[in-house]
Amino acid sequence: MDPEVLLRLKQIVGETKVLTKREHLFSYSYDASPLKLQISNLPGVVVLPQDARQVSEVIKLANEKGIPVIPRGAGSNVSGGTLPVADCIILSLNNMNRIIEIDPDNMLAVVEPGVINGDLQREAAKRGLFYPPDPQSAEFSTLGGNVAENAGGPRCLKYGVTRDYVLGLEVVLPSGEIISTGSRTLKNVTGYDITRLFVGSEGTLGVITRIILKLVPRPEATRIGLAVFQTMEAAAEAVARIGSSGLVPAMIEFLDQVYIRNIEEYSHIGFPLDAGAVLILAVDGDKEILDKQMNRMAEVCRDAGAAQIRIARDDAEAEEIMKARRAAFASMSRLNPTIIGEDFTVPRSKIPGMVAKIQEIARKQKIIIATVGHAGDGNLHATFSCDERDDQEMKRVEAAIDDLVEAALSFDGVITGEHGIGRLKAKYMNRQFGEGPLHLMKTIKQAMDPNGIMNPGVMFGES
Amino acid sequence: MDPEVLLRLKQIVGETKVLTKREHLFSYSYDASPLKLQISNLPGVVVLPQDARQVSEVIKLANEKGIPVIPRGAGSNVSGGTLPVADCIILSLNNMNRIIEIDPDNMLAVVEPGVINGDLQREAAKRGLFYPPDPQSAEFSTLGGNVAENAGGPRCLKYGVTRDYVLGLEVVLPSGEIISTGSRTLKNVTGYDITRLFVGSEGTLGVITRIILKLVPRPEATRIGLAVFQTMEAAAEAVARIGSSGLVPAMIEFLDQVYIRNIEEYSHIGFPLDAGAVLILAVDGDKEILDKQMNRMAEVCRDAGAAQIRIARDDAEAEEIMKARRAAFASMSRLNPTIIGEDFTVPRSKIPGMVAKIQEIARKQKIIIATVGHAGDGNLHATFSCDERDDQEMKRVEAAIDDLVEAALSFDGVITGEHGIGRLKAKYMNRQFGEGPLHLMKTIKQAMDPNGIMNPGVMFGES
Repeated sequence: MDPEVLLRLKQIVGETKVLTKREHLFSYSYDASPLKLQISNLPGVVVLPQDARQVSEVIKLANEKGIPVIPRGAGSNVSGGTLPVADCIILSLNNMNRIIEIDPDNMLAVVEPGVINGDLQREAAKRGLFYPPDPQSAEFSTLGGNVAENAGGPRCLKYGVTRDYVLGLEVVLPSGEIISTGSRTLKNVTGYDITRLFVGSEGTLGVITRIILKLVPRPEATRIGLAVFQTMEAAAEAVARIGSSGLVPAMIEFLDQVYIRNIEEYSHIGFPLDAGAVLILAVDGDKEILDKQMNRMAEVCRDAGAAQIRIARDDAEAEEIMKARRAAFASMSRLNPTIIGEDFTVPRSKIPGMVAKIQEIARKQKIIIATVGHAGDGNLHATFSCDERDDQEMKRVEAAIDDLVEAALSFDGVITGEHGIGRLKAKYMNRQFGEGPLHLMKTIKQAMDPNGIMNPGVMFGES
Repeated sequence: MDPEVLLRLKQIVGETKVLTKREHLFSYSYDASPLKLQISNLPGVVVLPQDARQVSEVIKLANEKGIPVIPRGAGSNVSGGTLPVADCIILSLNNMNRIIEIDPDNMLAVVEPGVINGDLQREAAKRGLFYPPDPQSAEFSTLGGNVAENAGGPRCLKYGVTRDYVLGLEVVLPSGEIISTGSRTLKNVTGYDITRLFVGSEGTLGVITRIILKLVPRPEATRIGLAVFQTMEAAAEAVARIGSSGLVPAMIEFLDQVYIRNIEEYSHIGFPLDAGAVLILAVDGDKEILDKQMNRMAEVCRDAGAAQIRIARDDAEAEEIMKARRAAFASMSRLNPTIIGEDFTVPRSKIPGMVAKIQEIARKQKIIIATVGHAGDGNLHATFSCDERDDQEMKRVEAAIDDLVEAALSFDGVITGEHGIGRLKAKYMNRQFGEGPLHLMKTIKQAMDPNGIMNPGVMFGES
């Protein structure tokens, strides 16, 4: 990195907030995606700004010199959204981690981008409020990252995704200009929806430096249940019937046979090893109706052929069921050293077709794929268990992902429901969209970031 | 209009779908806004396309010739979003009015832009489904217009605005290219949120030719109540307390003293004439808990000082209360020939301040302003009762609107919560936003519509 640039950066954020040692550069060079670091892509410098003004100065400098900037929170995204390009500036926002305000009267929170999702959830809960979006990474991912990736999670079926909670943003544009979007109000139709243009833009349009988030009243209580099915088809049928029953479940999570066996061997929760599929169900809201709702849901599952239904009698039992769900991904590491979590969403009615297709592809490519998912909204995570040292196998994994992309699209689905495009799926963007929408997205990117400094390569691939 | 252009238009949509008679041009030259038609601004032609291909051909022609295009549904917007500019093409989408599909399994509808909101609500209801956004214009406004304006309504407090229901769009871009955005899935993070960039873009970025809308299960039942307060402040206090009570009401509508008297004289519903404010309350969901929830809400109102509370015992009584609310705007026509419905939103906690300010401004400018609003989300409609033939009074109305803009902004509010910017509030955009966000919006407009043919003057004013 140009010594003059380093000097300027130190003047902006202070000597200790500019990291250039090789071990630092390595430490900020990976994320949770399966993409491997190319040593030739080591960043030039890691910068840890303290406020929007510092971010603005850094971006102005980068824009002037044409240096790529990769904004980064916890780096917990799995789509390669925060990987470095050679000699870039890694802009770590972890030091900007204050919950600036929780306003119970207007049910909103104002936070800096480095605040951990789980920390906000807990602070909101203390005031009887609820921040619903809960990606699996909630305990370590940052809200800035959640907004940049439009994070989802199991509660989205009832409560919506991150996008639905972002009322306003402060953003540093690629020019270095600091702007505020949105408002502290629930309704707002003043001009274009710039706020939601930034939500899910994966750091390619600017740097989020402040977030206004909507909060909702905390549901009085939650009831958790478990339904075990002999076949995948029966479970999918149950999901469809719950959907058309008029019930609004807080969660319908799905585990396939591969997962069931693996979790059972890992955590001994009591899943029958011959089960074809398991649904984890939740309802929340007023205490008085949860039993009724859960019983109706159980009845629907039974009608659809559930072999076994278990409704948690207390918090401990509920927690045990949820633990099994949370352990799913980690449990896969028992089988093989490498786990790759893929992410597709199909219309709910296409779940049986898509799950069958996943298993067909697994057989064809001779690899292990386990499927877990937020079945209520059609969001399926096909999880690959493989060994990255085995080049042959990794080629088959790649071919399988390719097949899965085709399958999801053939079912009117999308190539990612909540993980994002990042670098991992940039090559599939033209298959998701025709030329038109992609050209429009690139037109917007070009208009907003004419020098292409913001997270180059992410979303649109290398140009 | 250039005869060659007229000939081409007739070739595209057919002879009978191209209107050029002066009475036709007049008929398509107004909307529900108080802005008066300038005769010098008569459109050149009215075109009624039948499908996206025809829209595309019309737009291509307009783009080639640099002719302004004003897309138009029912013209029921109150912000001047569909007024003509001189020699423009009025593109009426009313003939594209098919409900293409209601998919109960995936809980979505696919519609053409000319479908009336109320028609979709009824069709959805037949299948046990619910399309919540319900602007006051629901019985005549089109869904295309609702999307272009991001329409709201009383149910938004619990259910969100139009934006929250748009899963995907087909749009004809200013180039004439037809693109599809979004998907039939609930979760989707593939690329920029182009869908929501078009929602609320007021016809300035393209023409919406198809809409995929999310539906939700129909609530089992609804309970409606009415709380009468001696003072505005007590009502506002009740709204705040309901907000922090953990209750999620389906609706909290607010009527001020001017409205109460006016409605009472008009419809004899039984409002006490000395009441300072009335709240109309609703809860919906599972039957078993509605009484509990409504009683709790009544208790909160009583604690906040409600003088009288009435809970509808049956549908007829509920309908009577709702009728009073719906009659509000029309009832104003008893006082003076001209009604202007203004629209501001403030954070809920700022309602008392904003309502007091509205009355202060009314006194200062010596005009009648009645306030009705969706109090739950801070969305207040200041309604002017005046006489457009009285130039002096209209100047005071204008000054009052100016004062109201300042007031809303001083309370961290926005200059429009659901009516849109249109031509009416374009001049206030720079007060709402600093230079930065406005410049960004113009950059996007310029990149997407370089010849500026789409609804020029709307949102950004005349250039």
